[in-house]
Amino acid sequence: MNGSERRQKTVEIDIRKDLFGANENAAALNTEIFKKHGIIAIDIMGSVGTGKTQLIEALCDRLREKYRILMLAGDLATTIDADRVASHGVDTVQINTGTACHLDARMVKVALQKVDLADYQVVFIENVGNLICPAGYSLGVDKKIVVVSVTEGPYMVRKHPLTIKHADIIIINKIDLVNALEFDIDALEADIREVDAKMPVLRVSSKTGEGIDKLIEVLHL
Amino acid sequence: MNGSERRQKTVEIDIRKDLFGANENAAALNTEIFKKHGIIAIDIMGSVGTGKTQLIEALCDRLREKYRILMLAGDLATTIDADRVASHGVDTVQINTGTACHLDARMVKVALQKVDLADYQVVFIENVGNLICPAGYSLGVDKKIVVVSVTEGPYMVRKHPLTIKHADIIIINKIDLVNALEFDIDALEADIREVDAKMPVLRVSSKTGEGIDKLIEVLHL
Repeated sequence: MNGSERRQKTVEIDIRKDLFGANENAAALNTEIFKKHGIIAIDIMGSVGTGKTQLIEALCDRLREKYRILMLAGDLATTIDADRVASHGVDTVQINTGTACHLDARMVKVALQKVDLADYQVVFIENVGNLICPAGYSLGVDKKIVVVSVTEGPYMVRKHPLTIKHADIIIINKIDLVNALEFDIDALEADIREVDAKMPVLRVSSKTGEGIDKLIEVLHL
Repeated sequence: MNGSERRQKTVEIDIRKDLFGANENAAALNTEIFKKHGIIAIDIMGSVGTGKTQLIEALCDRLREKYRILMLAGDLATTIDADRVASHGVDTVQINTGTACHLDARMVKVALQKVDLADYQVVFIENVGNLICPAGYSLGVDKKIVVVSVTEGPYMVRKHPLTIKHADIIIINKIDLVNALEFDIDALEADIREVDAKMPVLRVSSKTGEGIDKLIEVLHL
């Protein structure tokens, strides 16, 4: 009997897990700490290779004369991202998570204890490169940016509705590659609107700088 | 005081977690089940948008006359991937993980109970689109393929050494886009060799079919 002689089966099963929980208290403490120091904190989430670091670099280049900026870099094992941002003259704290697939509020709290927060006005937190897990863990920030990229194929929004819903702003990054990849960016934006009709969606190229000024405006920075 | 007047700080902290553990028993049971039925099982891991589904489609098109194939599709919420593979005339079981960022051995065990395993010779398991978490959970398979893509930027191998080390075969996918993205594929392969000098690395385009026959050879299928 070979594959083509048989009646085809399609079975669906469902397995749920709750990843949310005890993190919320630590997040609330972080919010208090940021508030006390008049700091605007922004969590930047997205899959690996979507250009989160390049986005932070572009933001720092435009904002570092206006604000004292700190970057917290979440990464499994390397300091690649923090080093890149540090090369723009911005202070950084590297949080190596080992095998943990996201930052949580306690990791951020520990990182904030390593610096004098009176020194800063804006904190950018680059989360671990992962579209799924970071969305389950509030860090206590003012704004959550989710970076998606035209290099990720057409389904990533439809596959991650919770991450999209959880965001305050969605960046569609690497729009300079739309033609080379024959990517349907309108369809992607429609998928986002399907999840949340009022979500601010910005088309950005962190490489060319397109859309960065608009993002700064939307962030009220 | 603005950013440029201050001495720059770079701090590093380390937070470790153990995600491995009780999963191993269930994985060993799955291995027994596969063995008993003479099934070759292959776990396909990789970030979202790296082309895991298209790779399985290409493999199924070449192998479905030779083998009775089952595909287990891990996804947070949708049946997009399973539907795509099912359209190639292959049986599928959809495992929706809700918010869980990876398949574990128990999920696979539950999925295997939904079908008559006497019907199959090859099982492809498409893991949840995530480069980090799936590597921590053995499923009890014969081979673990990690799919990386030239669309993911230059750092993904250096940022995920554990995932690379954990693999039996690495696929560098979407090589048809190398020129459009000005991607240095030799540097990426060198990063893989740095982690494991003997790792089989295959350059593939699931879209054009380049490299798929070689992969079938390496899998002894």
